[in-house]
Amino acid sequence: MPQPELPEPAHPEVDSMLSRKFGKEVANYFSGSPLNRVSFLRTDHSFLLAALKHPSTSFLLFDNLSPLAKDPTQLEYVNFDDVKPLIGENPYSKSEEAMIAEYNSTITIPQLLFLGLDESKRSGFEHNIYYGSPYFALDVTPKGSVKSEAEKLIEITKSRGLQFVEGRMHMSLPAPQAAIYAQARALLDWNARNPFCAGCGQPTLSINAGTKRTCPPKDMASVTNRSAIGSTTAEPPAKERPDCVTRKGISNLCFPRTDPTVIMAVLSADSERVLLGRQKRWPPYWYSTLAGFVEPAESVEEAVRREVWEESGVKLGRVVIHSTQPWPYPANLMIGAIGQCVPGGEEIHLKHDPELENAKWVSMAEVKEALEVGTSGLGEDAGPGYKEGGLRLPSRTAIANQLLTAVTGGFLEEHSHAPKM
Amino acid sequence: MPQPELPEPAHPEVDSMLSRKFGKEVANYFSGSPLNRVSFLRTDHSFLLAALKHPSTSFLLFDNLSPLAKDPTQLEYVNFDDVKPLIGENPYSKSEEAMIAEYNSTITIPQLLFLGLDESKRSGFEHNIYYGSPYFALDVTPKGSVKSEAEKLIEITKSRGLQFVEGRMHMSLPAPQAAIYAQARALLDWNARNPFCAGCGQPTLSINAGTKRTCPPKDMASVTNRSAIGSTTAEPPAKERPDCVTRKGISNLCFPRTDPTVIMAVLSADSERVLLGRQKRWPPYWYSTLAGFVEPAESVEEAVRREVWEESGVKLGRVVIHSTQPWPYPANLMIGAIGQCVPGGEEIHLKHDPELENAKWVSMAEVKEALEVGTSGLGEDAGPGYKEGGLRLPSRTAIANQLLTAVTGGFLEEHSHAPKM
Repeated sequence: MPQPELPEPAHPEVDSMLSRKFGKEVANYFSGSPLNRVSFLRTDHSFLLAALKHPSTSFLLFDNLSPLAKDPTQLEYVNFDDVKPLIGENPYSKSEEAMIAEYNSTITIPQLLFLGLDESKRSGFEHNIYYGSPYFALDVTPKGSVKSEAEKLIEITKSRGLQFVEGRMHMSLPAPQAAIYAQARALLDWNARNPFCAGCGQPTLSINAGTKRTCPPKDMASVTNRSAIGSTTAEPPAKERPDCVTRKGISNLCFPRTDPTVIMAVLSADSERVLLGRQKRWPPYWYSTLAGFVEPAESVEEAVRREVWEESGVKLGRVVIHSTQPWPYPANLMIGAIGQCVPGGEEIHLKHDPELENAKWVSMAEVKEALEVGTSGLGEDAGPGYKEGGLRLPSRTAIANQLLTAVTGGFLEEHSHAPKM
Repeated sequence: MPQPELPEPAHPEVDSMLSRKFGKEVANYFSGSPLNRVSFLRTDHSFLLAALKHPSTSFLLFDNLSPLAKDPTQLEYVNFDDVKPLIGENPYSKSEEAMIAEYNSTITIPQLLFLGLDESKRSGFEHNIYYGSPYFALDVTPKGSVKSEAEKLIEITKSRGLQFVEGRMHMSLPAPQAAIYAQARALLDWNARNPFCAGCGQPTLSINAGTKRTCPPKDMASVTNRSAIGSTTAEPPAKERPDCVTRKGISNLCFPRTDPTVIMAVLSADSERVLLGRQKRWPPYWYSTLAGFVEPAESVEEAVRREVWEESGVKLGRVVIHSTQPWPYPANLMIGAIGQCVPGGEEIHLKHDPELENAKWVSMAEVKEALEVGTSGLGEDAGPGYKEGGLRLPSRTAIANQLLTAVTGGFLEEHSHAPKM
């Protein structure tokens, strides 16, 4: 499988509130969401409607996956009155059963996501025992039957001096905002990427507040088309669609996809050196940890050993998982691990899977120094203490940096349950 | 999302060769594959053909995802001569480029997977620096244009006294065989489950030795159909298919899907009790750890805290990842963790997401005793030391058992990097 894209460093506020709440746990960038997803309420249309219309509710807009923001360091939200012309007074007026029964593939329903409740804001919104300010995301990409309403909404936001921030290189949001952005982006991308059913090839319908896609058994499109051309006879029944296996029970195809990946700091057998690799497109002297996708029916520990061997020839023994990082480009879960070479397994061979331009063993001291003076984002300059020719590494918001910090701080030695080989 | 299915216990040989090679690392059932996947060789048709035809090569057959076996404790493999009538003399005669250019959606190509090389068997098979006995898997489910050849192959295997073992309740394979079975089943299921492109709705083609599906730009079906009805004019060009976003770069839709799930042993704030839950359909007194799917843009640690709160109301602080288990029904990666309650967070509330019939706090001593006398598979009786009414738990091959074993053995205390709250 292709190399997963390396996390781009972002804002230094990585530890977020989690570091205060949960001791020394490393909370990587894009995690640490302030929202309670209350996922079990996503089918409750009375809850969703109340949340949608509450004055404290925030809507994060995306145009082609670019979020609305003041600038790249600050997301901007709009309110229900802003989005009402696009989504209508009540997009939850029908039950999911009715939405499925009345499905019409020619009608564009703007993709709306319920993200969760920010319980730190006692805004007056309450539903049973649940409370907090509701957050939604909405795809305003102009398309289909809602193209002109979406364009109008985009114009209105631009007239307020706001922008849809493109790309991801310059995303430098505070960690809690980054987590909200990541959740919204991942789910909008998944919906946009999967308009058809992989089981039968027919168009699908978004339900569960944007977290499920279902393959309806009928399509009213034929009925609508007949009406449109002025048929005066009784309307024919909706067209039955071909059978689909996803309608016969629970199918993972109906749920969002997340691709597990491994990313690992690798120690020599004597724990004195660290394996680093680089891709050709990176700036000079820039290295990082190795990474790759987990394959079907592989444990994380096996995937770490396989990827390290395939990319560098190095043979690992024990593997310990350190922390994880969601990565919404488009849907990765980065599982960070520390691996250690078997004695004699350090020889580098780049020709199994030639994805890396180079890999090399670096002394613990050099890694420590680079963590102090040589870190930056891929597109950024190194800090003031950096001297040309020195090792460069990803910044603190990348899990690679956290893994390297952990191994230079003696992470493996502290794991007495996973003894040194 | 729905509750992931609980791992079924299987054969007690769980530690496999990994426990010897890598110290105390917990290698869960379905991991510990003896095969080197050499994933970078999957596009090399000369390698695949040589591997296919080598006398040491093993083919694992599946009929509707049921593997060929002597009995539920022993897989049985066939050789190239057995499968040749179904797959032909050389299924790798065309390059992938040619296969895509000549794609014809009306022709059924039996799904063939290259699984890897068993390097412990010096069988004489060599390719550059790679060696070992090759393993393939083949879907022999009778269908499409190869229905009768597939039926013949099934008949031949049955005449040898072999069977296609249905279901998974009675799978009790030695761990290395279970890992091979898991890899094959997961990939065959993924291919069978995704015959259409989720991006555009058109049928897809298997490439990369069964580990990728691509959306071809043309379909020769129209050409073939014209020829079939005896057209004597020059053949028309293959039908151009509508544009598809997956052809414009790397798309995760083309690669196998693995759904990350969390499963966690939960300790009270004072580490003296363990939280266990049960589903209604389980036998009396049978409990296990809680589990659930990781959501988009969620770290594993966040998913653990969310799922525990949603299912039981219990509020967790720190979370430490313990080990992982591939689970091929259909494509889960179980990420096993240990979580600890925040002080005062132990109150149980089952009504957020009512998936559990019950959840309760159990003393460390009771869990220890149940791990000794009360473990079994869901469909099995408890062991001889069990007394009616005592706690029952999953057996050693389930990661839930490994997590409970770890917490009763002081796993968290050993994690000095993740201090007690």
